[in-house]
Amino acid sequence: MKINIKTISELTGFSQATVSNALNNKRGVNKETAERILAVAREHGYLPELKIDNIKLVIYKKQGVVVSDTPFFSALIEGVEAESRSAGYETTICNLNQKDPNFEAVRDQLLSDPNCAILLLATEMQEEDMKPFENALAPIVVLDSWFEEMTFDAVLISNTDSVCNAVKYLINKGHKRIGYLRGNIRIKNFFYRDMGYQRALSGAGLPVEQKYTFSLTPTMEGAYEDMKNLLRQQPELPTAFFADNDIIALGAMRALQECGYKVPGDVSVIGFDDLPFGMISYPALTTIRVHKQEMGRTAVRRLIEIMKNNTGVKTKVQVCNTFVERDSVRDLNA
Amino acid sequence: MKINIKTISELTGFSQATVSNALNNKRGVNKETAERILAVAREHGYLPELKIDNIKLVIYKKQGVVVSDTPFFSALIEGVEAESRSAGYETTICNLNQKDPNFEAVRDQLLSDPNCAILLLATEMQEEDMKPFENALAPIVVLDSWFEEMTFDAVLISNTDSVCNAVKYLINKGHKRIGYLRGNIRIKNFFYRDMGYQRALSGAGLPVEQKYTFSLTPTMEGAYEDMKNLLRQQPELPTAFFADNDIIALGAMRALQECGYKVPGDVSVIGFDDLPFGMISYPALTTIRVHKQEMGRTAVRRLIEIMKNNTGVKTKVQVCNTFVERDSVRDLNA
Repeated sequence: MKINIKTISELTGFSQATVSNALNNKRGVNKETAERILAVAREHGYLPELKIDNIKLVIYKKQGVVVSDTPFFSALIEGVEAESRSAGYETTICNLNQKDPNFEAVRDQLLSDPNCAILLLATEMQEEDMKPFENALAPIVVLDSWFEEMTFDAVLISNTDSVCNAVKYLINKGHKRIGYLRGNIRIKNFFYRDMGYQRALSGAGLPVEQKYTFSLTPTMEGAYEDMKNLLRQQPELPTAFFADNDIIALGAMRALQECGYKVPGDVSVIGFDDLPFGMISYPALTTIRVHKQEMGRTAVRRLIEIMKNNTGVKTKVQVCNTFVERDSVRDLNA
Repeated sequence: MKINIKTISELTGFSQATVSNALNNKRGVNKETAERILAVAREHGYLPELKIDNIKLVIYKKQGVVVSDTPFFSALIEGVEAESRSAGYETTICNLNQKDPNFEAVRDQLLSDPNCAILLLATEMQEEDMKPFENALAPIVVLDSWFEEMTFDAVLISNTDSVCNAVKYLINKGHKRIGYLRGNIRIKNFFYRDMGYQRALSGAGLPVEQKYTFSLTPTMEGAYEDMKNLLRQQPELPTAFFADNDIIALGAMRALQECGYKVPGDVSVIGFDDLPFGMISYPALTTIRVHKQEMGRTAVRRLIEIMKNNTGVKTKVQVCNTFVERDSVRDLNA
């Protein structure tokens, strides 16, 4: 039998126009339809057999403020690359920047490529940004973001539990007025950290007081400037802060010190991420270690599992953190 | 060199008493110490090389009410067995019943066996029950329960998100007074389902009204009896209920019908689990499908990963559910 668009149309029952659109990766063809047509085309030799040899790490930037060139993301990428290599795959990096003029074209090309597998670094993404990825032809694992109605496999930081435990640590050290250094760009991770902060306080019968929440830009310079501006107004301070991440914690700590507050003498601070800076800051920063390499490795293992045997059942994997006790918290019981 | 307790004591730096206790799996030796001593003893041929060929599925029963012989647990066990076998391991089942007189002895023997790997079915466990397992010599993956301060790898049902989505579905069908058929034994899963129920209501600006929460025994007979007793008092009913699981939903549905209410004409019901009964009940039950087999398989894969290369980083894997739309919900917009 000679295989052409007409015979594929007969074999699949879809119109020749639909078959042609699917074969040319045109938009407007429903995902299952396209997969069925491509599978039949491959089976009968009209298209070459599918061969994924390439894992694409797609770095999605919306504001580009949170996902920047910090040690956090390079460690994550290292984990991805190492695990891919040991399984025999190449890792290619693909930046997707919403501010680029050709953003949609680059994204849609990616979504219509059936020869790669995608790790989508979604730290800055909102729910509506995920929508187009539902139609991707490639298998996808989402890294570092999760939405209630999401239909993807995902690998995430375990935010709420570890922040809850860190704030309980402050409570055990005798702190009762515990504030929140809140990133003023609300990525999903920050949202879940806030939940942990609130859960620990209400679990201990302590109030969540709005006056102790300080909104800061999540860059070191930005957090520093914002905190200095806030401190100039001489606000009432809590005895300890939990910060949405280390960058914010370190920027705010410097501002506090410049304004004459001792850390941890007057104010204690706990960060999140365990960036290398925190080890050499003064005082050394008590924080929550995120196992970035292990997150990258876990995501690659899951992606390969899906590539080999896709049951259609999604999983959401949280990689648990470790609390790192250093010198930025004062023991009020002592 | 002749290897005996004395030389192992010299090699490790621990006292001969400690070495002897560790080699005899006696209590009171700290876990890392015991591991170090056993490793040295194996390395020098004093003990045979460690060889795990056996995955123990430990079924922990506290009340024994929730974990009973339902299709839920047999599907889970099937997944465990299938995945273990395909990786070359035998699965042995071990019942641990808190009500057994020799419960502690059985448990402690299990915890001191370094030649197996443990899948701990923890559905009915409370935080304090987990404590002794922290000292197990075997690698452990916990199935079906999670606590904030837990230090185990775990594989779980994704409760909150899927209940939130199911309750949103009721809201989209025009329901505004949505009640909760609440299991009166509060396992962790039920707690997280309650969170999803509340999140969906508050997200839609609807009140969580105490009068619409009906506490029922989580067995089919118990839920049926309790619901009948409650209905006899002619309470105000909501237009729809979310139930903590299918067993409760089905028991309550029968009670409602016997008391003259139409399901879904007067009251809609959504369950959780997708047990086979729900397909043949009248009306067929709209519910949330838990991928039990996949949970079992995922837990075994994770356990094998740890056995082969334990990085010490824990993960919490949630296996996502699928919403199953059948006939027990009325569309109030129609």
